[in-house]
Amino acid sequence: MKPAHPSAPAPATPSADRRLGLWLVGARGSISTCLVYGLHGLREGSLAPTGLCTARGPFADLGLREFSQIVLGGHDVCTRSLSESARELVENGILPADLVESGSHWAAAYEARLRPGTLDGPDVGFADLDPRSAQLSARSPREQVQQLALDIEEFRQRERLERVVVVYAASTEAWRAPDPAWEEWNRFETALDKGAVQPASLLYAYAAFQAGAAFVNFTPNLGSSVPALRELARHKRLAHCGNDGKTGETLIKTVLAPMFAARNLKVLAWQGYNILGNRDGQVLSESTHRASKVRNKNEALRSLLGDEQVHTHVGIDYVPSLQDWKTAWDYIHFEGFLGAKMSLQFTWTGSDSALAAPLVLDLVRLVDHAAGKGEFGELNWTAPFFKAPLAGGSHDFHLQFQGLLEHVQGWLKPQV
Amino acid sequence: MKPAHPSAPAPATPSADRRLGLWLVGARGSISTCLVYGLHGLREGSLAPTGLCTARGPFADLGLREFSQIVLGGHDVCTRSLSESARELVENGILPADLVESGSHWAAAYEARLRPGTLDGPDVGFADLDPRSAQLSARSPREQVQQLALDIEEFRQRERLERVVVVYAASTEAWRAPDPAWEEWNRFETALDKGAVQPASLLYAYAAFQAGAAFVNFTPNLGSSVPALRELARHKRLAHCGNDGKTGETLIKTVLAPMFAARNLKVLAWQGYNILGNRDGQVLSESTHRASKVRNKNEALRSLLGDEQVHTHVGIDYVPSLQDWKTAWDYIHFEGFLGAKMSLQFTWTGSDSALAAPLVLDLVRLVDHAAGKGEFGELNWTAPFFKAPLAGGSHDFHLQFQGLLEHVQGWLKPQV
Amino acid sequence: MKPAHPSAPAPATPSADRRLGLWLVGARGSISTCLVYGLHGLREGSLAPTGLCTARGPFADLGLREFSQIVLGGHDVCTRSLSESARELVENGILPADLVESGSHWAAAYEARLRPGTLDGPDVGFADLDPRSAQLSARSPREQVQQLALDIEEFRQRERLERVVVVYAASTEAWRAPDPAWEEWNRFETALDKGAVQPASLLYAYAAFQAGAAFVNFTPNLGSSVPALRELARHKRLAHCGNDGKTGETLIKTVLAPMFAARNLKVLAWQGYNILGNRDGQVLSESTHRASKVRNKNEALRSLLGDEQVHTHVGIDYVPSLQDWKTAWDYIHFEGFLGAKMSLQFTWTGSDSALAAPLVLDLVRLVDHAAGKGEFGELNWTAPFFKAPLAGGSHDFHLQFQGLLEHVQGWLKPQV
Amino acid sequence: MKPAHPSAPAPATPSADRRLGLWLVGARGSISTCLVYGLHGLREGSLAPTGLCTARGPFADLGLREFSQIVLGGHDVCTRSLSESARELVENGILPADLVESGSHWAAAYEARLRPGTLDGPDVGFADLDPRSAQLSARSPREQVQQLALDIEEFRQRERLERVVVVYAASTEAWRAPDPAWEEWNRFETALDKGAVQPASLLYAYAAFQAGAAFVNFTPNLGSSVPALRELARHKRLAHCGNDGKTGETLIKTVLAPMFAARNLKVLAWQGYNILGNRDGQVLSESTHRASKVRNKNEALRSLLGDEQVHTHVGIDYVPSLQDWKTAWDYIHFEGFLGAKMSLQFTWTGSDSALAAPLVLDLVRLVDHAAGKGEFGELNWTAPFFKAPLAGGSHDFHLQFQGLLEHVQGWLKPQV
Repeated sequence: MKPAHPSAPAPATPSADRRLGLWLVGARGSISTCLVYGLHGLREGSLAPTGLCTARGPFADLGLREFSQIVLGGHDVCTRSLSESARELVENGILPADLVESGSHWAAAYEARLRPGTLDGPDVGFADLDPRSAQLSARSPREQVQQLALDIEEFRQRERLERVVVVYAASTEAWRAPDPAWEEWNRFETALDKGAVQPASLLYAYAAFQAGAAFVNFTPNLGSSVPALRELARHKRLAHCGNDGKTGETLIKTVLAPMFAARNLKVLAWQGYNILGNRDGQVLSESTHRASKVRNKNEALRSLLGDEQVHTHVGIDYVPSLQDWKTAWDYIHFEGFLGAKMSLQFTWTGSDSALAAPLVLDLVRLVDHAAGKGEFGELNWTAPFFKAPLAGGSHDFHLQFQGLLEHVQGWLKPQV
Repeated sequence: MKPAHPSAPAPATPSADRRLGLWLVGARGSISTCLVYGLHGLREGSLAPTGLCTARGPFADLGLREFSQIVLGGHDVCTRSLSESARELVENGILPADLVESGSHWAAAYEARLRPGTLDGPDVGFADLDPRSAQLSARSPREQVQQLALDIEEFRQRERLERVVVVYAASTEAWRAPDPAWEEWNRFETALDKGAVQPASLLYAYAAFQAGAAFVNFTPNLGSSVPALRELARHKRLAHCGNDGKTGETLIKTVLAPMFAARNLKVLAWQGYNILGNRDGQVLSESTHRASKVRNKNEALRSLLGDEQVHTHVGIDYVPSLQDWKTAWDYIHFEGFLGAKMSLQFTWTGSDSALAAPLVLDLVRLVDHAAGKGEFGELNWTAPFFKAPLAGGSHDFHLQFQGLLEHVQGWLKPQV
Repeated sequence: MKPAHPSAPAPATPSADRRLGLWLVGARGSISTCLVYGLHGLREGSLAPTGLCTARGPFADLGLREFSQIVLGGHDVCTRSLSESARELVENGILPADLVESGSHWAAAYEARLRPGTLDGPDVGFADLDPRSAQLSARSPREQVQQLALDIEEFRQRERLERVVVVYAASTEAWRAPDPAWEEWNRFETALDKGAVQPASLLYAYAAFQAGAAFVNFTPNLGSSVPALRELARHKRLAHCGNDGKTGETLIKTVLAPMFAARNLKVLAWQGYNILGNRDGQVLSESTHRASKVRNKNEALRSLLGDEQVHTHVGIDYVPSLQDWKTAWDYIHFEGFLGAKMSLQFTWTGSDSALAAPLVLDLVRLVDHAAGKGEFGELNWTAPFFKAPLAGGSHDFHLQFQGLLEHVQGWLKPQV
Repeated sequence: MKPAHPSAPAPATPSADRRLGLWLVGARGSISTCLVYGLHGLREGSLAPTGLCTARGPFADLGLREFSQIVLGGHDVCTRSLSESARELVENGILPADLVESGSHWAAAYEARLRPGTLDGPDVGFADLDPRSAQLSARSPREQVQQLALDIEEFRQRERLERVVVVYAASTEAWRAPDPAWEEWNRFETALDKGAVQPASLLYAYAAFQAGAAFVNFTPNLGSSVPALRELARHKRLAHCGNDGKTGETLIKTVLAPMFAARNLKVLAWQGYNILGNRDGQVLSESTHRASKVRNKNEALRSLLGDEQVHTHVGIDYVPSLQDWKTAWDYIHFEGFLGAKMSLQFTWTGSDSALAAPLVLDLVRLVDHAAGKGEFGELNWTAPFFKAPLAGGSHDFHLQFQGLLEHVQGWLKPQV
């Protein structure tokens, strides 16, 4: 018998409500908190869908899953409650207090669906770890993935979901040297059996695929990006995409850099300084965690400018008082005609979580739609959402967005 | 049979060097000064073609006119010498001193080819007016256009040029209420006969077309944009484009605004403040002159954001000490998911003239190439170069540039 | 015999609680709203006295009036309730929601003490005018001042106050040409009798003095600054100070400009652009209202730099979405050694009302203390609080603050 | 009888022109280059004394040494010529080309007076080292100081100078752990004999004192700041001051921070990012060299804000294309009344060398004057010129400058 997953024919009995499961890893983090209350606001109609590109044409014509059809669940490793996260976001002027109030039942139901997650070794100590997560993390990788997959399966069945999309939105993990076990699915399974697979993000991706779910990696962590897991996804005909949501400073970079190239203005230096105070900032202030993040931010720039030698710098500093308000200053030094030296500098002030949450909703709706069309493997048209798109390609945001629009046009065209 | 060049007879003997004439209106202004010395540097190979998009692929494959094939001439209304303009630009750190030195002969030859221009009534008083220009401006519009056209014709013949492109780069004129004489070529001729055509930019465009030259309007002035002159251009099968070179703040706006739209982030306010100290700044500090400029800058924004009600502001203030270094501060207030208010602000510091000059060279080479291919009328693919493209279309810089690239691909494709 | 309090007879029985009345003109405006709820927070100890310089040494040693001893009342012309103002400030992330909740009784008691104020002619139409204010404004100036003074007198008696300080914090009035009636108290009385005194701020100051109250003008309006009212204050031995609270951009200017002078760095241009969205911004977007404000901002700069010719500009633009968050960009172009041109630019983002409210509390406590010491007339040591200090003197903030500290030292010295 | 100059015998025959020697360590560096050509411009009257505070009253009334009375010499370790340094500064738009041309003889005479200097071990490799400097650096510390002092002595005698002021303006040295030999003059001599004194800046200060010269340390290096050398200076009755010229970002910090304290606004975080491309930037990009610099920049802030816990950060990054144009972005996050969070951010763009050179001239003239008045030891009134004043005291620039003005008033008062 063939599973309920994307490439399969519609279930024998038509689902009355066509419910979609969104399983959040990092379920009590800031992004998830914004998403949970925001989705409530969208469902009850009190919140405008600002920040969701799928709310605009031509996306609006696709017949994407309705907000009311999305059911939330997830994994987390902390004991901190969702209302604690919400309180902080209200204080920071990000989450409206009345939304938190009106969404309290919705949030409670969500909390009831959460399951203890697993955690990468170097990350223990950062969080107020849930003892159940500590316990799970201490088990063998094989046991961990089985438990994680089981949680997702139970979610699907209990909530009678047509499909599940797992969104990985946990904290940044420490950088790791490449491991041969990542190269082939085969070797990956062997390594799992030997208890030698890490970090945790790989386990989450594997578990999602085991559970027949699509996987979206919104972080710079490895997730489903290693060849072994790409192979697994293809084998299971499951869709996935990532890495690292393009929400703020990098978004602006990939919008501006192509302009310098098009005008043949020579960028001499591009210095970027990010300051932020949320848990992400705290984790990134630790150098092994910062390494992968900075890499994604730098690479885009060099390829867009077509100059491997261009002087670039990306700093990330933890400034607790800023909380979720990421502030970034970029100084772009460039040369024009006659060798005249000029500059463009910008300061970006945005709530990282409020920028990320609607992109997650966009991705979930689009990935769900694609899965319904039988698409699987790395979804290359999701590129405009990511700093390091799984399928590579240009980092030029406008080109990426053109690509997305063309893909959508393809969906809209009547099939012959 | 289709002529290589629409309005002039094909040369009897094939020109050994295929020389192209570039006739600059505003021939001693900052843009022209940068262009004259810059072209010298490009010809002698001492200057890199930074800022010229035609120096990069795929443009480089088109076989555009070589820098060594371009001959310069022009109109100006001031007595101020080119070396005076150059000295100022050297002092401002824009023009390298050694380029001025090595290019002194080249510049002197150019000066010898300049002819007195004509001036719009409200502009008299701004400049150290050349008495010959005062005299010309006092004659009837019909006599003015005849003289201007004659100057261009003589330039073409004396220099044995295959084609002439007139680039209008004079100061911003005062805004004028629309005149019925602008609506039809017919009425325009009648008005010319009655001595009732103004402002001067219309006369320059008319004269260019009379002389069989292509016309590029790099300013916000009317130039060839009125229906009467569009009709004339089509009739004469001459190419033209404009208006208002997109060099700095507006360029950035048309790069950033589409990103806000694509992400469905709601722009609440876009405030832009420009400060500059060159003659352009001085003229624009006068409110009737500022009117047309500001209109071009505002309109792009509203159409790109798809929000006619968005709160926008464009200020232009004259700050003499800045000289040619235009500095602009833009503050973009926007709303994201959950109604969270965020901001992006940027400060642009660029030499307006050093940014404009290479675009003029790009346009001249591309317009020349198009004319050689038999194109005429408004060249819509020149849109990425202008704040208010004659042929309309999207203001999205990246879309405009894509359009240009596609047009170039068309040229490159082998003709069957 | 010198009374402890210049205009009112010393109370027969020593007041057990030494209550001070603070009468706010513009009682439901943003500044007053911040002050009312903030004072509640200070009284109940839930709010730290951040932003109050009198909370720090040496001011803390003066034995200034306790927060618990201050009773609030005031005049306003609008029907808009205090809770409406509060709701907006909560939404803007300025006023904490829990403070509004816990202070509801305190606020209601305050509202009960408010009386309809009067309004300057050109301002009618800006606000949702209270019909009782419209009625009062229509009466003769003499009747208006009598009513205003009566309101203050009743406040004093009903609340058994030792002293009343009137703080004028209404909206900016339209600029007016000087009137001979302003020159002498004598003539002022005659003009009052003739019904020919305006604008309203003069009436408020006159009424305060009539009621034996000290007067603090926190706005750029005329208030008590005209010679006639200075004369009246001296005659009545009442203290007063103003004009125009120095809260944000101008504060920074008067801190930075002396540095350029001390280092002999030549300021070439100082361009300042203010954008804001509160009622103050709306009123100032109207040019006759903006005139006085801009004058105060410009004058300080020229005198501090010792250069009457320095190029300066102060822009104020209304950007509704910013609400109370005033954002200012200043660009300072300066020349150093060897003629090298450099720049300093800053962006200030502050809540105007939250910056102003604690200064009002500081001033009330200090003016009260000075009055208790028998000081009267213009209090020159209040200079660091104002853009246009009544008693003139240097605009250098640090010098002004030194002067204030020295005055405080004088108070602290044991009297012999 | 009181000698006009504390440590050297009065010249046998009164010097007709009262010549002052200025001995520059780092004689071909950017600061010295600006100073050499700038002094030439001041002498010939072609350059305005912008940036020199001693050019303004009350300093102008002191009768300080005339520019024409100053003779230049110095030590350097590089082979790079002064004209090479000058060429770079001309290209960067800092040094005017005509000044370099007109000052060529003056500069050549200066070059003829330069002597090979010594270098700290960890710095070898950064520069194009003069072989004679390599040789000198290889000798024992005792021999090094003897040679350095001899060079200064010969300069004094050959040029028949009334006094010599040594200004130490070499590159930043690597940070070193404190050494007991620094604690007492006694121990310092012993260590010199044992060949165990480093870094080089200590040797230069010692040599200056040996040669009877005053010493100004414009760098963050140790120089004369260690107790042993303070003791030596007092013993020899020689004046000295330092450390670390307060030219740019730190200057602004020490101007702004007192304002936040005075207003009782709570600074939550002060993040500073410096980017620069000159040799100073290159050296500071190496972490051991950056350590001392950053310390000076941070300490001032904490003491001014009176908050040891305030979150601060100072970054310094090397951006070659900026050359001498130091650009700094500071983001100041602060809390006002009601807990409202606000921000001030500034971008400073200045030529470090053009800012430093006039301060060096100011210091030399003032130290010379003080020495003439018999002052010796650490000159505490030089505080406004330094990031880490030798005599400590407040970092508040305005307070420091008040102190300097008062000292000057003391000099101007008629002696009784």
